[in-house]
Amino acid sequence: MKRKLRMGMVGGGPGAFIGPVHRIAATMDGEAEIVAGAFSSDPAKSRQTGLDLQLDPSRVYGSYEDMARKEAALPPGKRIDFVSIVVPNCSHYPVAKAMLEAGHNVICDKPMTVSLKQAKDLQRLVRKTGKVFALTHNYTGYPMVKQARHMCRKGELGRINKIVVEYPQGWMVGFITNPSNAIGLWRMDPKVAGGSCCMGDLGTHAENLVRYITGLEIDELCAELSTFVKINKLEDDGMCLVKYKGGAKGILYASQISAGEENPLNINVYGTKLGLRWEQENPNYLQVKDPCGKVIRLSKGNDYLCKEAYQAGRLIWGHPDGFIGAFANVYREAYKAVRAEVDGKKVPKCDFPTVDDGVMGMAFLETVLASNTSGRKWTKMKR
Amino acid sequence: MKRKLRMGMVGGGPGAFIGPVHRIAATMDGEAEIVAGAFSSDPAKSRQTGLDLQLDPSRVYGSYEDMARKEAALPPGKRIDFVSIVVPNCSHYPVAKAMLEAGHNVICDKPMTVSLKQAKDLQRLVRKTGKVFALTHNYTGYPMVKQARHMCRKGELGRINKIVVEYPQGWMVGFITNPSNAIGLWRMDPKVAGGSCCMGDLGTHAENLVRYITGLEIDELCAELSTFVKINKLEDDGMCLVKYKGGAKGILYASQISAGEENPLNINVYGTKLGLRWEQENPNYLQVKDPCGKVIRLSKGNDYLCKEAYQAGRLIWGHPDGFIGAFANVYREAYKAVRAEVDGKKVPKCDFPTVDDGVMGMAFLETVLASNTSGRKWTKMKR
Amino acid sequence: MKRKLRMGMVGGGPGAFIGPVHRIAATMDGEAEIVAGAFSSDPAKSRQTGLDLQLDPSRVYGSYEDMARKEAALPPGKRIDFVSIVVPNCSHYPVAKAMLEAGHNVICDKPMTVSLKQAKDLQRLVRKTGKVFALTHNYTGYPMVKQARHMCRKGELGRINKIVVEYPQGWMVGFITNPSNAIGLWRMDPKVAGGSCCMGDLGTHAENLVRYITGLEIDELCAELSTFVKINKLEDDGMCLVKYKGGAKGILYASQISAGEENPLNINVYGTKLGLRWEQENPNYLQVKDPCGKVIRLSKGNDYLCKEAYQAGRLIWGHPDGFIGAFANVYREAYKAVRAEVDGKKVPKCDFPTVDDGVMGMAFLETVLASNTSGRKWTKMKR
Amino acid sequence: MKRKLRMGMVGGGPGAFIGPVHRIAATMDGEAEIVAGAFSSDPAKSRQTGLDLQLDPSRVYGSYEDMARKEAALPPGKRIDFVSIVVPNCSHYPVAKAMLEAGHNVICDKPMTVSLKQAKDLQRLVRKTGKVFALTHNYTGYPMVKQARHMCRKGELGRINKIVVEYPQGWMVGFITNPSNAIGLWRMDPKVAGGSCCMGDLGTHAENLVRYITGLEIDELCAELSTFVKINKLEDDGMCLVKYKGGAKGILYASQISAGEENPLNINVYGTKLGLRWEQENPNYLQVKDPCGKVIRLSKGNDYLCKEAYQAGRLIWGHPDGFIGAFANVYREAYKAVRAEVDGKKVPKCDFPTVDDGVMGMAFLETVLASNTSGRKWTKMKR
Repeated sequence: MKRKLRMGMVGGGPGAFIGPVHRIAATMDGEAEIVAGAFSSDPAKSRQTGLDLQLDPSRVYGSYEDMARKEAALPPGKRIDFVSIVVPNCSHYPVAKAMLEAGHNVICDKPMTVSLKQAKDLQRLVRKTGKVFALTHNYTGYPMVKQARHMCRKGELGRINKIVVEYPQGWMVGFITNPSNAIGLWRMDPKVAGGSCCMGDLGTHAENLVRYITGLEIDELCAELSTFVKINKLEDDGMCLVKYKGGAKGILYASQISAGEENPLNINVYGTKLGLRWEQENPNYLQVKDPCGKVIRLSKGNDYLCKEAYQAGRLIWGHPDGFIGAFANVYREAYKAVRAEVDGKKVPKCDFPTVDDGVMGMAFLETVLASNTSGRKWTKMKR
Repeated sequence: MKRKLRMGMVGGGPGAFIGPVHRIAATMDGEAEIVAGAFSSDPAKSRQTGLDLQLDPSRVYGSYEDMARKEAALPPGKRIDFVSIVVPNCSHYPVAKAMLEAGHNVICDKPMTVSLKQAKDLQRLVRKTGKVFALTHNYTGYPMVKQARHMCRKGELGRINKIVVEYPQGWMVGFITNPSNAIGLWRMDPKVAGGSCCMGDLGTHAENLVRYITGLEIDELCAELSTFVKINKLEDDGMCLVKYKGGAKGILYASQISAGEENPLNINVYGTKLGLRWEQENPNYLQVKDPCGKVIRLSKGNDYLCKEAYQAGRLIWGHPDGFIGAFANVYREAYKAVRAEVDGKKVPKCDFPTVDDGVMGMAFLETVLASNTSGRKWTKMKR
Repeated sequence: MKRKLRMGMVGGGPGAFIGPVHRIAATMDGEAEIVAGAFSSDPAKSRQTGLDLQLDPSRVYGSYEDMARKEAALPPGKRIDFVSIVVPNCSHYPVAKAMLEAGHNVICDKPMTVSLKQAKDLQRLVRKTGKVFALTHNYTGYPMVKQARHMCRKGELGRINKIVVEYPQGWMVGFITNPSNAIGLWRMDPKVAGGSCCMGDLGTHAENLVRYITGLEIDELCAELSTFVKINKLEDDGMCLVKYKGGAKGILYASQISAGEENPLNINVYGTKLGLRWEQENPNYLQVKDPCGKVIRLSKGNDYLCKEAYQAGRLIWGHPDGFIGAFANVYREAYKAVRAEVDGKKVPKCDFPTVDDGVMGMAFLETVLASNTSGRKWTKMKR
Repeated sequence: MKRKLRMGMVGGGPGAFIGPVHRIAATMDGEAEIVAGAFSSDPAKSRQTGLDLQLDPSRVYGSYEDMARKEAALPPGKRIDFVSIVVPNCSHYPVAKAMLEAGHNVICDKPMTVSLKQAKDLQRLVRKTGKVFALTHNYTGYPMVKQARHMCRKGELGRINKIVVEYPQGWMVGFITNPSNAIGLWRMDPKVAGGSCCMGDLGTHAENLVRYITGLEIDELCAELSTFVKINKLEDDGMCLVKYKGGAKGILYASQISAGEENPLNINVYGTKLGLRWEQENPNYLQVKDPCGKVIRLSKGNDYLCKEAYQAGRLIWGHPDGFIGAFANVYREAYKAVRAEVDGKKVPKCDFPTVDDGVMGMAFLETVLASNTSGRKWTKMKR
């Protein structure tokens, strides 16, 4: 019998989009319960969310610094086991830093920071403190993404030559006529979002997905960023030619002005033996493409899948898993590490994105920005 | 601030498929927590599940009768607010009856009973006791099913002429070579499943879905049942020609021997103005078919949807909702009624399947069985 | 080097839909050219079509009787080698009879006749005269239909248990608001179409497709026909429960009032080893469904296909074949028989629908009509 | 009544892939017949093909020079009206030049030449001679491509911001294990194919399709070419970032090593009002994407389409048109111009790709090659 982990949250106050997603994902398997939070930089709003969540008011804080310190001062049997950080991009770093320094395990939304330097700082801090740090690149939680990873890693595709990863959204076109269609105008503001709108929000997911599935790291890239929506102070479309270490090449693009697209993160991997295609909007299937003209559709919940893919399916075949299930899989894996850390045991190797993935993501993002500003040239991946 | 409802469960012990689904669905919105259960007719197993769920051992019972009685004896602030019944078909009736008679609200898995007589008994009992009774025809919880319902009910399709509802599964073919592919061999046993295997399990979902969406009741039908799998003591394939009240006609079929099908519950509704198609395996979309050759794909999470459909989406567009989300929507609606009942208020009209739907389902099933046994003739819907 | 066959045509005058399809299909492989015709019962219209087609005016006839007789009187090196009959249903029989009796080979549109009696007469006449008679159930010409047939006949599906064949159209809904959407209002007139509108036009294609693919003949059926469009004197929707010889069962339905459907003739065949699905609107693919949850998509033009399927593809993989290509395949096969007959050689076994298929189609249609009128009862297939 | 045009052909001898496609496409509407040819540089092979096609042996030539001269010497009522050139890339130029100089109209396969210089020479020659020159960028012949063009040109998409055009094939992976999967190994040989394998064969189609639909010309591009198959002396994968005149941006890629892809030429166009997607492998549909989450599927053969799209459909809705039909549409349009030229009338503006499109294609190809060799830099489109 496992005890429920005690979860704290920073961010996720009234009107937030991703906060509630984290709360459901974190608790849907019954492994954790939220007990503390600093839900907003406005103490009244934080308090209100605490009330809505039926928390003990003494565990609802007006600032994350307060929370970091006071929770750390609670006895081990009471204080939070980990904190979920769901604030806008620019605050990820200070909050995560404070939490790690106070001794808390961290589950953090992406992109991890707003600079590679910050990312490396966090990486050092994680190593130094020995705390758990999970980054919610939630798409890695889908069963069929895990199956794709398995097939690539086992060599079933042969040598991987080409990778096309697509992540076009269109909400910035839609919201002009229908403001309710927007998902966070703060994304357009460099003070909150950091130096990137589209590539930070979407491109880093794409980079992470490629690496999660294929294991390939970018060697160099050539990027072109554009701003089509006038009120946007950052880019709303980005496209990259990419060369991976080892010789594979590919395309990686993301967009927020691709009219009529909702959230299609699609990946195509082409090897010397097989091709693969996975689509986020139809996530329970994986297309395996035989080079002589057969397309085999695998589906989640079947026991021919690899163990990781099979177990990541919450329900049997034909009963669709969704976005939240995948998100919860990241939490479920992170909990293995959190439990070990809290219990003073060796933290096992788990299947969730870490601070190292965050560093890679920020390296990618800074390389993209550098390529774009320096004459759109091929640019070596920053390290 | 809403308090968490206290949930009890009958069934859902070790190895169960649908029990865990109910537990996640019931709790994922943070509106309820499980506090009591009679998880198995084997007290040791029940106890084990109670431990796994970290329940107070005094609230884990060795029999449902015990649970019904003892929970009712607890003070109002402590006893369960409702019980979820997730036992095999043949036990739905006695458990539901005991719970209602003891004063508990009930959320029951489908098919509701194993006979129309039992169903009507429950209907009378629900009316007499004034308790809430929800039946988990979970497919009604999908956002786009609600949108289809809205469009039919508002007349956007014109007069409905034809309905084709399909529910072929193939697991009985698959499990022969791969036993792990089976989902409950008890379904083949009349002592546990009642008089039907395929039509009770799947056909009742199909009948319910048609009625939920279109509002049309069956007037008469002609059924053909078959058993293709030798060890099956009941039917594993059923198909019906149907005439609805008011003049629409259609086909309703279900199967467990349709090799390679997973769980495609699909419905096509054809009116004098528009056609519709919805597919359970791709549930976040609804196809609207213009009679002059345009197919419009609506998707969940968009604010052009009707209010019920929009709210039933747990996440915005492009972030797939799954089976469990739909299931949880049934619970969420039932909670509105449960809260009112517990608080002694008038129970509002809510959007969940009720005991009346269960009666219709059993009437349908008995009509199917009667048609099949009486020379496969057109048979008036039993009442 | 093959000489071009000389083709005559009855029907296909101004405004016809299927006449031009036959002309393209018959000639696209360069194996035949049209040299004679009685294109309309109105001699002026016939003449005009002859001019449009640049025919020798002496070979353009005012009546089919004239054509039958005069062409037969021409010397062997000049007279037509075969005649294509593309008149409305009710005229198929008299025209085909006249042509066969005059010694001409016949390629006839479907449904073959308007009664089983007529069909059997033609069958007798074909046997007596030894002439070639091909019936253009054109959907049998698609490469992936031939692959499906191959797989069924070779036993790759195991024993076939269930067949669902669907053929819903919606043009009768569309044409009410958009008259140009109609494809032949003569189909609603019993004097021209015979005793059936929907099942004669579409249902016979469905019956033929099932038999072509699986080889299974109907043993008995239960039919329900409906008329939803007021001006229609015949049925515009038909649905059947079917029992095949040997024990398979299934559903066969056709419709002209399924709003928004264009021309989806779809077939699902479920065996004890595999399932199959083919869709006419996406004809270059065949879905093969493994009972344990893999769907393999085969596509035309690949050399893993059976010989018949491979050769029926006019182009390699990825270059879509269409309706006319399939239609032309029926002609191409029929030409093998026509050439043999004309050359006085033994007519080989070819892969095209024959007069026997026409007899089966009319037997099916009369059984459907009989079941519907005699209290919608299960009815043995007429012979 | 239109007389049949007299067609000559250069290339298309035994074993050719595209020659037979041209012959069917050219003749399927009954507007032309082949009367002459120089089918192979081997006179015996040319003669054999002439026999197979039942041509007058005096019109079958051993060389294209011979054909150009001798056909020109025939009287106007006998000599060819146009010649189709279906030889490998490197011969397009000399053959087309000889034919134009001899006074023949030309329909030429793509890519038009192997250099921009050659292309401009042909352009000058076409202008000087006033002869018709059509280039078979056959994908422009599809009905739904014409509809997409119509919508873009009429402003229905608003301002176009982004274009993603994809053309991955995988046959070079497939043919390694299955040699019969190859479509012309000459494509790998610079002596026959010119300076490019993948981008010349596929990339030029993609460039042409973008320009045909949107009217946008490339301003500059950044290209990356790769060779993954060892025996290939040219590139088998190419990808470009593109900036169009007027500000739109996009991605254009083509590949021959994308394992398991057959022939998916797909285009996505995103404007400020709508998005569009068309797929060559499912060509009878066009997806129109509303920025607020509706996807409208238009289909060919419906009279809501623009006139050009409607007329390009050979059959009504639901009866799939294929690759050859689209190809034949290019011919059909070219015939309007050929007839006018032959009759000494003003050549009307027709809807087929011309020598100017060929120049643009070669400019594109040379720019791609230049970008790739000059350090993979952004490079202005050559003129």
